[in-house]
Parts: sequence; structure tokens; C-alpha cells
Amino acid sequence: MQFETIIVSKKGHIAFVELNNPSKHNSLIYKFWGEFKQAFEDLDKDPVVRCIILSGQGKHFCSGIDLMDFAALANQKKSDPSRSALLIRQILGPMQDGVSAVEKCNKPVIAAVHNACIGAGVDIISACDIRLASADAKFSVKEVDIGLCADVGSLQRFPKVVGNQSWVREVCLTGRTFHADEALKHGFISQIYGNQQELEVKSLELANVIASKSPIAVMGTKRNLVYSRDHSVEEGLEYVKTWNHGMLQTKVLV
Amino acid sequence: MQFETIIVSKKGHIAFVELNNPSKHNSLIYKFWGEFKQAFEDLDKDPVVRCIILSGQGKHFCSGIDLMDFAALANQKKSDPSRSALLIRQILGPMQDGVSAVEKCNKPVIAAVHNACIGAGVDIISACDIRLASADAKFSVKEVDIGLCADVGSLQRFPKVVGNQSWVREVCLTGRTFHADEALKHGFISQIYGNQQELEVKSLELANVIASKSPIAVMGTKRNLVYSRDHSVEEGLEYVKTWNHGMLQTKVLV
Amino acid sequence: MQFETIIVSKKGHIAFVELNNPSKHNSLIYKFWGEFKQAFEDLDKDPVVRCIILSGQGKHFCSGIDLMDFAALANQKKSDPSRSALLIRQILGPMQDGVSAVEKCNKPVIAAVHNACIGAGVDIISACDIRLASADAKFSVKEVDIGLCADVGSLQRFPKVVGNQSWVREVCLTGRTFHADEALKHGFISQIYGNQQELEVKSLELANVIASKSPIAVMGTKRNLVYSRDHSVEEGLEYVKTWNHGMLQTKVLV
Amino acid sequence: MQFETIIVSKKGHIAFVELNNPSKHNSLIYKFWGEFKQAFEDLDKDPVVRCIILSGQGKHFCSGIDLMDFAALANQKKSDPSRSALLIRQILGPMQDGVSAVEKCNKPVIAAVHNACIGAGVDIISACDIRLASADAKFSVKEVDIGLCADVGSLQRFPKVVGNQSWVREVCLTGRTFHADEALKHGFISQIYGNQQELEVKSLELANVIASKSPIAVMGTKRNLVYSRDHSVEEGLEYVKTWNHGMLQTKVLV
Amino acid sequence: MQFETIIVSKKGHIAFVELNNPSKHNSLIYKFWGEFKQAFEDLDKDPVVRCIILSGQGKHFCSGIDLMDFAALANQKKSDPSRSALLIRQILGPMQDGVSAVEKCNKPVIAAVHNACIGAGVDIISACDIRLASADAKFSVKEVDIGLCADVGSLQRFPKVVGNQSWVREVCLTGRTFHADEALKHGFISQIYGNQQELEVKSLELANVIASKSPIAVMGTKRNLVYSRDHSVEEGLEYVKTWNHGMLQTKVLV
Amino acid sequence: MQFETIIVSKKGHIAFVELNNPSKHNSLIYKFWGEFKQAFEDLDKDPVVRCIILSGQGKHFCSGIDLMDFAALANQKKSDPSRSALLIRQILGPMQDGVSAVEKCNKPVIAAVHNACIGAGVDIISACDIRLASADAKFSVKEVDIGLCADVGSLQRFPKVVGNQSWVREVCLTGRTFHADEALKHGFISQIYGNQQELEVKSLELANVIASKSPIAVMGTKRNLVYSRDHSVEEGLEYVKTWNHGMLQTKVLV
Repeated sequence: MQFETIIVSKKGHIAFVELNNPSKHNSLIYKFWGEFKQAFEDLDKDPVVRCIILSGQGKHFCSGIDLMDFAALANQKKSDPSRSALLIRQILGPMQDGVSAVEKCNKPVIAAVHNACIGAGVDIISACDIRLASADAKFSVKEVDIGLCADVGSLQRFPKVVGNQSWVREVCLTGRTFHADEALKHGFISQIYGNQQELEVKSLELANVIASKSPIAVMGTKRNLVYSRDHSVEEGLEYVKTWNHGMLQTKVLV
Repeated sequence: MQFETIIVSKKGHIAFVELNNPSKHNSLIYKFWGEFKQAFEDLDKDPVVRCIILSGQGKHFCSGIDLMDFAALANQKKSDPSRSALLIRQILGPMQDGVSAVEKCNKPVIAAVHNACIGAGVDIISACDIRLASADAKFSVKEVDIGLCADVGSLQRFPKVVGNQSWVREVCLTGRTFHADEALKHGFISQIYGNQQELEVKSLELANVIASKSPIAVMGTKRNLVYSRDHSVEEGLEYVKTWNHGMLQTKVLV
Repeated sequence: MQFETIIVSKKGHIAFVELNNPSKHNSLIYKFWGEFKQAFEDLDKDPVVRCIILSGQGKHFCSGIDLMDFAALANQKKSDPSRSALLIRQILGPMQDGVSAVEKCNKPVIAAVHNACIGAGVDIISACDIRLASADAKFSVKEVDIGLCADVGSLQRFPKVVGNQSWVREVCLTGRTFHADEALKHGFISQIYGNQQELEVKSLELANVIASKSPIAVMGTKRNLVYSRDHSVEEGLEYVKTWNHGMLQTKVLV
Repeated sequence: MQFETIIVSKKGHIAFVELNNPSKHNSLIYKFWGEFKQAFEDLDKDPVVRCIILSGQGKHFCSGIDLMDFAALANQKKSDPSRSALLIRQILGPMQDGVSAVEKCNKPVIAAVHNACIGAGVDIISACDIRLASADAKFSVKEVDIGLCADVGSLQRFPKVVGNQSWVREVCLTGRTFHADEALKHGFISQIYGNQQELEVKSLELANVIASKSPIAVMGTKRNLVYSRDHSVEEGLEYVKTWNHGMLQTKVLV
Repeated sequence: MQFETIIVSKKGHIAFVELNNPSKHNSLIYKFWGEFKQAFEDLDKDPVVRCIILSGQGKHFCSGIDLMDFAALANQKKSDPSRSALLIRQILGPMQDGVSAVEKCNKPVIAAVHNACIGAGVDIISACDIRLASADAKFSVKEVDIGLCADVGSLQRFPKVVGNQSWVREVCLTGRTFHADEALKHGFISQIYGNQQELEVKSLELANVIASKSPIAVMGTKRNLVYSRDHSVEEGLEYVKTWNHGMLQTKVLV
Repeated sequence: MQFETIIVSKKGHIAFVELNNPSKHNSLIYKFWGEFKQAFEDLDKDPVVRCIILSGQGKHFCSGIDLMDFAALANQKKSDPSRSALLIRQILGPMQDGVSAVEKCNKPVIAAVHNACIGAGVDIISACDIRLASADAKFSVKEVDIGLCADVGSLQRFPKVVGNQSWVREVCLTGRTFHADEALKHGFISQIYGNQQELEVKSLELANVIASKSPIAVMGTKRNLVYSRDHSVEEGLEYVKTWNHGMLQTKVLV
């Protein structure tokens, strides 16, 4: 797996996906979304991989969408606004699909965030299963500042992973920066580590714990947690019963 | 806009809605619901207004429904219980619509709560986007005490803005008072300020930050946050893509 | 009500359901689910009972499913995997129904948890209305360790009562133990008491407060909180209006 | 009730709403939607009215939206396409609300259609409870021809009242005219009468039968049929049980 | 299986459930609902039974609820209307559960209807998979005439099995009788046979065809048809994929 | 576009997709699903294409899945039934995606069916917008006969396009053949033509009518019809309003 905008590597049961545009603080060009999706689809099918760690090369985790690149795409001259609307649909679809690929991947994904995580960076980590950060991490739901693009998943997923909606709306409506401690306090991340090195070590430790469990059980747990978020309890129970009528026939029980 | 039960004023891009029955601690008579709805519909259409602050005149934010007034309406003699049921539907509908008008309004609404916020007061602020409070603020989901009326939105919205459902059920099932610090700890409000004066200053500061952003982006953010709360992530993504195929054609990008 | 796997008793308006397999740390055999369901259905119909406290006899609250007992059932020889799938559906259904009976019961249920609460124990208390714990309480979503059975409700209900989904996924995907303070911090329980005795006293106090309220209002509050969790705000408002067109005709108002 | 675009009259328990722009074949100007909504809200509250007949004055039932009138509204010059998008939302909302008022009205509405029923005419009658037609009736889902406006309800309601979706898509995607017999064959209308006079007589007969029933039972039937269309069977059963816990307390049983 | 209100018998893979109150034209007393539910739960578990035929003893299929019996239950004196509301919920729940048992049963159920099928009779057959009738069959959604009880499933299921909603609303809102040919024309039944004897022969033939298929495939087909009725296509596809990941492991393929 | 299992051609605004395995009566090998999906994705993006006709080369439209080919895939030896379940999920996903591509394609798709249309053939045409047939057409929902595979969409889409659910369940539970006239009577197809040649001519005529309309309006109509099928009327109205706030800015109005 060779990509331009990300680096994918593996070590034992763990795969590492790194945003790889460090000279621009990992800003995301359009090509990124397709590569990112491809990477998670590949890892999903890789029978060796059991857990994935997502991080960023260089000084920051992610500085969001590359706005010049996006504007060049979105501002193509069209014959009328309805054709522009069609164009926008065609651009946004693959961007959303890129983020959703994290969620559709059956292996748990741990986001390990250091320093800045801006705009689309928040969209992406909100689709991860677990969010860990170093003490210097800072976040911003930046879309309101640039008048666009909160459609890669922040407005959909970020509020559903956090336990204080007054705070959610404040940071979404102001675009202000918040730091790791505030993110932890309101439920966006689950651990802060002292620095990036410790973050790496601890992320790997956690990934190894998950990788040590039955992959059938881990996959079932992820799929049913994602399913249950979007369904009533009763629907979730019916689904997990149906899921398990096949999956419980594993031999790992005894 | 002249109302009896509320005061509406404007200053620059900010509008102020104040509960205005201070001699009765802002208890809410039936007329209130229609006026409150009208106010938010008017402010929604006002092109100058970009953010709204909701507060209460006098010593308390809100003491809930005026029970004598409500009882006079609800206890009208009817020929049989099914006709009483119809009457109750007709009374409750406009009350619910009053609260929902806060949510349907496309401009963000900041609730600035001081001292007591009881019963229907909790219903109303749960429909606001952001909840700030002074240190003396105290809250009560009072309905279980009077055997009625938790139908203006507390049971529907309060649990969805808070991150500890054990606590939600405890305060809903006991009707007990909880204070600002407890409200913050469990995720109902996002900031506590020392006193009412500081609350006012800080609410206005926040409102001004929001008002400084692109109104198209702010409106899109509110609408999509509300939509996403009530839909699956996938539905939310489809909606925001469709929303943005029209709204991204703004020129604020570059 | 005489059961083998639980003890049910009553005192005034309060009923007590105790897991009763202390020699095995309240592990749950298959018979438990039917008895547990029956108990909550009976208590639901009992006009004297207004609130229920769930606790465990002996050293621990609950050590989860009795795996030997479960394996004996689930591993019956079948002619082909699709017949095994049918068997699994038939086994899991009543287990899910047992947990759901807590939720379907119209009386609030307080879980008072001491020491270990493992696997299916978490499923059960996630379906309770209020979760209180003693300082020694520890929890584990154990299913990922044994490759099965997270289908009695943990993956469906646990995430919906908690305000930090990064933490939820971490504890579900690792099966690691977490203690009372961590459970409180992330919103799973709402109070910690010093020891089991204090826990009992305080649970009873809380139950008595709830029992002192109008049972019609309490029942309506529970039903609408459960309904609203699984529906949009608008659906919830329509339901509570309809609920109340009958229930507001009570005479407790004045 | 005096309106410009419709005529509302009453006779006994029956109300008559007539489209009243016969010189333009009952084309619908923007003012129509507000008046139409108001009429159905008023009739809903009128305790004498039990059933409503909707028909058109003059040669045709309805020729659809007045396109010049609509274009004047929708084509107002705006500063950018996102402001035009906002304008369009503000225009379409009240149009949709006008059609939905037929459905929200608790009294059954019978559409009696003669001759042409075009575009928005189909939207409106699809929201009625019962559709009867004279032999000369002809219909067209015209929106595809003019590139707009199928947003007043045809694409949402028309397919849900008809039993052949291949036919639905064909007439929606071509805009072709279909006649009464074809409408009956595929399930859009339920009766054809020889001419307009017979249609009037038979519509009134049917309305009188409905008006002779318990209005509580009729209202409950309409509300639950509308609710059930948009919900699962299980949701519908819960709703009707809740509806009836108040409404069955009528004395009409024996 | 010995019941008072129904007769259950078996012959090969086919079971027969007959309404058994012929002296009162198979009117349904309250005890019926529990017995009916029990019968379908038993047949669901019976490994020999593969298809079920539902019919009525005596001159008519079913004359609906026994109103005197129902009134005796529902009109019990209660302290206030909210307690009456509770009583009504407790009465209606088991009635709905009785009808739903037909749907929850994994074996297909064929309703063979002769002569009158009134009120709750329509509720019951609407929950069956296939509806066949003799030429003398006549139907009535009677509830609007007696002002109650359309809550056993007619308003929820009848419209979803029929392809002309104008006709559905007409017969529901008038309570008028319709005959077999009208029922066939609008999609309520799928075959008319000359007389009751032919109906019996043909129902049995059809049941035998179904019983000749793989019971795993038949059960999967019923479950997924019921599931898909209440879900979007996408939800239905996810469910059937999950269903089949267990059930396709049968050996019947080749 | 060169494919092995299908032929894709274009003429003016019309594209033709033909099943191309005539020597085996267009049975479908696994490779088909990917090619079929690719074809519809390509046609969706092709700005010239406005309508698509789907037909089959040779004597029959489609004889369903190639069972030997499928069995070779699905019966791969796995270490335990849960790994087989995973394999089945991985096989079925792309098959479902193949059928769904017809629906996701924004251009209307007309199925022109001659002679036999069996099993997966019914799945595919149920996802088309319009179904036309020659007089010799015959259909079978074959899955119940082979104990598998009704998961490519028949159980999900077929019942939603047809107006007699008693008939739907009969043909799904028996697998029996039904002919064009029966398909038309119950609402599965919308026209029968005398022979294959006439079918081709008429399909093309219809396609040309659709192609003559505004492609923006046609696309909006298809998308909103698909959306509305799976949502409540209210959800559908909100969606179409949002859709049109971008798309109505076309200039085709006047």
C-alpha cells in the first residue's frame, strides 16, 4: 500500500495510518479522501490487522482541508446554480466517504492526537473509536470560520461522542480552540498523556490489548456499537441477536 | 414587537428576549407561549439579528408554569373524558410549539440563567443552543411534584443535552433542586460565572463572537446540529450534503 | 413470589430484588432470566410498589453469566449451522427479554452496586433508571474476553447512558476493569457512597423520595424518558402529548 | 371565514372548500397557501364540522401553481446563491404547510375531482383522505415539465397512496396525463362517477355517512391512519394504545 | 394444546387454528387473546409444523370483539380518569399481543375467510401472511361504528397490505361492508374461491406447497418480509445480510 | 466501457445495459455484480446519458444467480462457523451493492423484461424505476426453492413496489411462477406489450420522453421518490425543500 497523502505501515497485528503532509501541517488535499478510504478498506480485509492507530506526521496532527485546493474544485464555472449544486454533491460525497471508511472498517481505530487538530481533523477523529491526546493537543471545529465544509462529519458525529451539548454548540458555533483538558472534561477524548512520545507508547499498548482479544468478538463489538448509536435499543437488540446467531458459533467460548 | 409576557430588544446583531413577569418570579401564563413563539419567529426573519440571548427579569430566571392559570384552562368541564382529552391536546400543542420555536429559529439562542430555573424553565433552556449560568443558579425538573406538564420538552430534550443518564433520571424522578456546579459537572450547562452581572457580560461577549461569523455558516451549523441529534449519522451526512449543495455557493470562502 | 435465583421482598412502597447466588458471586444461570422477568412484571402490576431497588446478595453484585451453564445450552449438537443459529436465537431472546423487563416495568428501578459488577451485570444495571455504587464497586464489560454474549444489552444501553464515547469504546473493546470513581467521572453512575451499608441507606432514602410522588406522574416520567431516548424530539413531544391527554386528567393537580 | 382564493361554506356537519380562481382554471397564487392552511385550521377547531369536501369552482379542479406569480417571488435578485437558497426555503415552507394542513386537520377530507387536476393539484389531493373523481377527470404530475416544485408533496404522498410504483415513477418522470380509469386501476382514486353532478351528490352522501359516526372515533381513525403510514407497525400499535387510553373513556360504547 | 376459544389441530406439517365460538359467530371474548397468542407461540416452537391455516368454525369467520365482555372489563369504576387510562392500557396490551403473535410466529399463516369477517377479524387477518376468501366473504372495519378498539392492529396493518389508500380510508372511516371481489380488486386478498369447501381445499394445497420448501428458507423469507415492511430498503438489506451470515450455512444449497 | 457479463451501449441521451450471458439464459456469475455496479456508476457520471434501458440478450431476461459459481465461493472451507459467517458477509455485500447501484444512479432506469425473469432477476428489476414486459414474460421469486440468496433485494424492494401484500407473500413463500398479466394486475409492472420487439420500441419511446425533460428535474424527481419511499412524509418534505433550495436555482423555469 503506497499512498501520497498518508503512510500506512504494520507491525504484528497493529496497523499505523499517518497523515503525511507535514510541511503543510497535514492539511488535506482532495486526493487524500480517496487514499484514506482505500487504506481503511484494505486494512479491513487484511486478516493480520486487528487494530489501527491513526496519527499525524510532523508538528501537528491535522490542520484541516487545504482551502486553496478545495476552492479550485468547488468554484469551477458552471452554467447555472443547479449545476454548481450537482458539482458540490459530487465533491462532498467522496469526502464524506473517506471519513466514514474509518467507521465501516471492522477493526477498532485509535486516534492519537498531538498539537493542532483543526476542522476536518475533528471530523476524522470523531469517526474513530477511541481518541487519545498528548497534553499539547488543541482542537477547533473550524467550519463556521470559513463558511463551509462541516459536512465531512463533525456536525453529525462530534455531538454524539460528547456528553455536554451546550459545550458542543458553543465550540461549533464559535470555532474557538479548546485544549486537551477541556476535551477530556466534556467527554471528547478519554486520556491525556504528557507528550507525544508517551502518547505513542500508550496508544500502542492499548492497541495491543485489543489485538489480544478474539477478533470475532472485537469486530462484533465495534459493529454493534456503531449500529446501536444510530438505532433504538430495541432495534439494537434485534440486530445483535441476529449478528450473534452466526457469530456465536465460534469455538472460542470454552 | 410589543409583548406582555416578554421583553424583546435588539442591539447591533444581538437580540434579547427577557421573561417579564418578575413580580411572580417569571411564572408563565398561557398567553406566554404564543408570544414567545411569535418573538422567535420574528427574530428568525429579522436579517439584522444573528444571535439571541434569553434571560429573566427580576430575581429569578423562571419559576415555571403559573399553575392556577393552567388549571383554569385544563379543568374546564367537559361532557366526557375523551372530550377532556381533546381539550388537553389543544392546550398542550401551543405550549410545545412555544418551546420548539427556540429550536426552529435559525439563529443561535444562548440561555443566561440566574437564580431559580424551575419546571417549564428547564424545558425552555433545554431547547436553547448554549446554557450559561451564574453561580447562584439552581434548577428543578419540577413536574413529578405536581403530576403534570413534563410535556413542554424536558423529558425529550434535557436527557439529550446531558452526559449522565443516571443523574438525569434521578433529578427527573425526584424533582429535587440541583445547583450550577452539579449542572456543569453532568453536562447541562457549559460555564458558570460569578454573578448575574458577569453572566450578562460574558453572554454578550459570546453572542458577539457568534455574530461575527458568516450568518450562512452559523445557520447551517445550527440546523445541521439539530437535525443530526434526531437522525443517524448516515442520515445526517446525506442531509448536510444536500444542505450544502445550495449553501456552499456562498462567496465567503475566499 | 418465590424464586430460586433472586429474592424479592417489599417494605411499604419499596420492593427489593436481590441477585441470589452468593456462593458463585451471583453468576447468572439460564433460569435466572425468566425469573427476573417474572419478578419485574409482577412488581409492575403490584399497586403498592412504587420504586424498586436492585442489589446483590453476598460479596459481589454480579459476576456475569455462568459460562458452563450457558455453554451447555448453546453447544447442543445440531444438524447444521443454520439450525444452530436458530437455537442461538431461541436462547438469546429470553435473556434479552429478562434485561428489558427492567425497562418495561413502569416503576423506577435503582441499581445499588457493590464490589464486582461484571459482564451481564453491566447489561442489567444499564437498563436500570438510576445507578448508585459503593466506593469498592468495579465494573467490566467482559464480553470481548469470552467472545460472546454482549447481546443482553450492554452494547445497546451502556453507550446511551454515558457521556464519553471514547471511554465507552475503550472499556468495551478491552474488557478492562474500571472503578466507581471512573464510572462517575464519565457518567455511568451518579453517586458513590463510602461502603455497602451507606449505599443501602442512601438507596432507600432515594427510593422513598420517589415513592412519595404521584405514582401517575412518576410512571409517566419513566415511560416518556425511555420513549424519548429512542425517538427524535418531535416524536417524543407527540407521544407525551398523547400520553398526557389521558394521564393529565388525574386530580392531583390542585 | 372570507378568503380570496378559496370559498368555504358549511351545511350541517359538512364543510365545503372550493378552489376559487375559475377564470384561470384554479391556478394557485402564493396567497392561496396561507388561506388554504387557515381554512383547514379553522375547520379543525369548528365543533360542528365533521367532514370536509374539497372541490374546484369552474371548468377544472386545479391547473397547478401560477408560474408567473411563483417566478416573481423565487427570482428576486439576491447577493449570492446561498441567499437565494434561503429565499427558496422561505417560499417553499408555507406552500408545504398549506398542503400538510389537510393532513393535520382532524376531520376527514374528501377530494371531489372533475376535469383537470395538474401539478400542485395532485399534491393537494394526495394529502386528502379519500379521492373521488368524475369520468372526465385527468391528472398530471407536471413538475418534471417545468423543472421545479414537486416539493409541495406529490413525490412524498402520491407514491404512498398508490399500489403500483412502476406506474408512479412513469407518470412522475414523464409528466404525462392520465385519466380517471387509469387512476382507479392503479389505486390513486377509489370511485369514478359519471359526471360532476353525480360526483357532488355521491361525495356528499359519503361525507354524511362519515359525519353520522362518533366524531371521537372518526378523529382517532384519521390520526392513527396518518401516524401508521409513517411508522412501523409496532410504533403504530404503541401510539394507538396511548391514544386510546384517553379516548376510549368516551361513553359511546354502549 | 387444549383451548376454549380456539381449536388447534395438526396434520403432517400443517397446523389448523380455528376460531371456536360458532354460536356467537366467533365473537371474541377477552380470554381469546391469551389463548390465541399461546397457540401461535406453541406452533412456532413445534418443529413439525411448517405452515398454519387460520379459519372460523360455523357460519362466519369472525364477528369481532364481544362488546359486552369488553365493556365489563373496560368500564370498571376507577378513582379518576388517569387510573382508567392505566386500566385501558392494561387491557389493550394483551389484545395487541394476541394479534402480533401471528406475525411473530416464524411459520407462514394463511387466513381462509368465509362469510363475515368483522372488526377485530380484519385486525387478525391483516397480520396473516396470505389472505384467501370464499366468494361469500364480506369484511368491515367496524371500529368507527362503536367508537373504539381499532387498536388491535387494523389501522396499523390493513393499510400496509393494500394498494389503494383512498379506498382504505373510505372503508375505515365509514365502517361499511365490502365483499370479496372488492377486497381482491384493491389488494386485500389474493384469491377468491367459489365456496367454503373449495377455499379449504385450496388453502391446504397452498400450505402444502409452502411446507414442501426448506423451513429455514421459508422462515427467513417471512422474517425478512416482516422486517422490510417496517424499515428502509437499506436497513432491510443490512438485516438480511446479517440474517444470512448464519442461515446460509445450511446444507440445502446443492 | 467494456464488460464481460453485460453490454453497455449508448444512442443519443439513452444508454442500454444488456445482461450478456445468453447461452446460460443470462445467469449471473459473481463477476457480474462488480461490472453491473461499475456500469451504473459510469452512466451516472456521463453527462450525455439521461435515461437507461435494462434488458437481456437472448431468449430470456435473466435466469438468476449461477448456483455452481456461487456455491464455489460460499462453500470455501473455514475454520469455524463464525469465519464462514464473515465470508458470507463479504460475498453478499458486493451483490447487494450491485443491485443498489441501479437505485443510486441518478438517471431513471427502465427494465424491459421478456420471457423468464427468475430469482436475482426479480431483485434487479425491483430496483429499477419502471418495469415493462412483453406478453411472454414470467417471473419467479425463486429463493425459497434453493434456500438462499433472497438478500440481493427482492424481499426488501419487491413488496414496496406492489399493491397486494397477500399476493407478495404467496409468490415469495412458494416460489411459483407468475406471468405478465398477473404482475400487472397486482402492480409489479406497469405495461404489457405484445412481443419483445414492441417492448423494445415502446421502452425506447418512453426513455426518449424522459430524456426530453430537464435533467435536473428528472434527477431531483428520482432522488426524492427513492428518498420518500424510505422516510415519513414529513422527512420527505424537509428533504425536498432542502434539495430544491439548491436545485430550483436553475434557469429552466421561464
